[in-house]
Amino acid sequence: MTSPVTFTLEATDGMARRGRIDTHRGAINTPAFMPVGTAGTVKGLYPEQVRETGADILLGNTYHLMLRPGAERVARLGGLHEFMDWARPILTDSGGFQVMSLAKLRKLTEKGVTFRSHIDGSAHELTPERSIEIQKLLDSDIIMQLDECIALPAEHREIERAMELSLRWAQRSKDAFAEAPGRALFGIVQGGDDPELRARSAAGLQDIGFHGYSIGGLAVGEPQEVMFRVLSDLTPLMPQDRPRYLMGVGKPDDILGGIERGVDMFDCVHPTRAGRHGHAYTRFGVINLKNARHKDDHRPLDEASPNPNCRRFSRAYLHHLVKAEEMLGAMLLSQINLHYYQELTAGARTAISAGRMADFAVETRNGWARGDLPPLA
Amino acid sequence: MTSPVTFTLEATDGMARRGRIDTHRGAINTPAFMPVGTAGTVKGLYPEQVRETGADILLGNTYHLMLRPGAERVARLGGLHEFMDWARPILTDSGGFQVMSLAKLRKLTEKGVTFRSHIDGSAHELTPERSIEIQKLLDSDIIMQLDECIALPAEHREIERAMELSLRWAQRSKDAFAEAPGRALFGIVQGGDDPELRARSAAGLQDIGFHGYSIGGLAVGEPQEVMFRVLSDLTPLMPQDRPRYLMGVGKPDDILGGIERGVDMFDCVHPTRAGRHGHAYTRFGVINLKNARHKDDHRPLDEASPNPNCRRFSRAYLHHLVKAEEMLGAMLLSQINLHYYQELTAGARTAISAGRMADFAVETRNGWARGDLPPLA
Repeated sequence: MTSPVTFTLEATDGMARRGRIDTHRGAINTPAFMPVGTAGTVKGLYPEQVRETGADILLGNTYHLMLRPGAERVARLGGLHEFMDWARPILTDSGGFQVMSLAKLRKLTEKGVTFRSHIDGSAHELTPERSIEIQKLLDSDIIMQLDECIALPAEHREIERAMELSLRWAQRSKDAFAEAPGRALFGIVQGGDDPELRARSAAGLQDIGFHGYSIGGLAVGEPQEVMFRVLSDLTPLMPQDRPRYLMGVGKPDDILGGIERGVDMFDCVHPTRAGRHGHAYTRFGVINLKNARHKDDHRPLDEASPNPNCRRFSRAYLHHLVKAEEMLGAMLLSQINLHYYQELTAGARTAISAGRMADFAVETRNGWARGDLPPLA
Repeated sequence: MTSPVTFTLEATDGMARRGRIDTHRGAINTPAFMPVGTAGTVKGLYPEQVRETGADILLGNTYHLMLRPGAERVARLGGLHEFMDWARPILTDSGGFQVMSLAKLRKLTEKGVTFRSHIDGSAHELTPERSIEIQKLLDSDIIMQLDECIALPAEHREIERAMELSLRWAQRSKDAFAEAPGRALFGIVQGGDDPELRARSAAGLQDIGFHGYSIGGLAVGEPQEVMFRVLSDLTPLMPQDRPRYLMGVGKPDDILGGIERGVDMFDCVHPTRAGRHGHAYTRFGVINLKNARHKDDHRPLDEASPNPNCRRFSRAYLHHLVKAEEMLGAMLLSQINLHYYQELTAGARTAISAGRMADFAVETRNGWARGDLPPLA
């Protein structure tokens, strides 16, 4: 019998929490950043490189994988871990978010959502029950309920309608999940930027009961201060003994602010996407390697980085790779960005245990504010 | 004082030769396949991965590097080895071949060739003297003379004209090279498919005297049998105590045939380009991973391959990566192809030393002829 997924709260500092999620595929130290392996690969990295950046878990996208190569096919091939040679935990989303942002001819009903694939136009249906089934076929360790995520700003009644639909879908997801030893099911709090709707959503989900609670419907167009306000109001209403996952967030300062407000888990395509676009994240903020100032710069990105790829190549070389559109540029910058995200969350974990999260946050923000080295004279 | 580049002939078997080129940056075991790092990177691989495939040396393209990032810039940044973090030997071509195949508004005179960059239209001139200068700025270990390489079929007088021009440029290249301790200069035999012109070219180059002799003007449109005939006629006319390098060749069967005819060194973009196009080379020939037959195939490319990347992923996963145009597909297949090329040349080296090159060639061709596994039922 596969052991259940459990959460241990190891330390708190203010609202910030350090914890550990244990699964039969290994532990996830929180606060955790989960690299996104959309289509069964974290773009530009070998799976062992993803692990070496410090990632304990990665995220797979149900929408992409159900369309290609198909959930039943992945199951026949031994599940997503086997398919992509990643032995550690995998969290999958429900597919709902991508259906609403990528698919064509979407039609949402109480039952679920029908749509056409953005790849080949084929017709598909995603219901709470089918989403759970797909995620089990993928052999996901942490499964998300299907929800409806709407962009902000939005009308109050529209936010409320989507939140209430998501709650009903949460119950159906729980019923469909049933007993699934070794897997966890997370409910998703919706409610936009409205504290009362968020509170109702959080309470409703806790009545149903989940292994963890996600926060959806943020980073969907609202200013960062709105997101932070929602988090500050919401996390005190969430159970202490369950992990909290802020979906699709974000840039490093979003993550730091989320940790300060009691979030345990994050995911975002930003570090790899930014890498493919020539941007590098370091302790001193973001560096645009397309900029001609790097053309003759022999200095590494950060000579004191713990990441060898940050030290071994000159900015001039990285600039050259980016300008020449060489794969290695995207590969290196994706690795460098994911490594920095892991440094950030690892630093927060250490700081929380030491009771110095506030100092860590100040030091981290000071580094970003210092900014990059001045250009060479 | 940097030690000179030396060649040691270690064993022969028929026309096939096993040898070693010693440089102050390490030894090159021959027959050697040199991966092509066109623009300062072997496309899709980290430099340490290139080494791990078994490569002793890689090739840099003078044409690409002179245009971007520029030879003087590479020199200021410490040379090409430092720039791309490859500590082992590098061979550079002269730039002439790419000028004739990629550049715009080319104009060839006795002095050299003027052209416009295919990247930004900027005007450039390449002469024998400037090519040597650029290759020294790049800090190349093995430098090529500038030559004129023409496509086949061609008129006899046109082949003769280009061969004679190349001989005059060979002398100018030798003069420009002068004393360059630690570096080697190779002359390039031209003469198309004409044995008499090839013989005159080889003799003329030996009169000038080079550290090694390249064979240019092949794999430029002629059938493989023509290339093999030229090699069979030519290599007996080349010095025993100098390495022989067949430029821009080729597919595995071209390389095997070249080794059987006394060639020591090869380079080609084919393994990485084929990898980017979804093709994998194994002992059993080439596998097109775009083919739908792989969609549900759980089997690895070659379960007995010495290359872990050939064993760890299913064909279904590789097919998925290729269809989804994921970077990891191109990365893996480029690595897999380069690894196979190194297995092929390493196998030939062992066979030559053991006096069983003929058997090795038969076994190798039998593997290719067997072809891939039958599709799953």
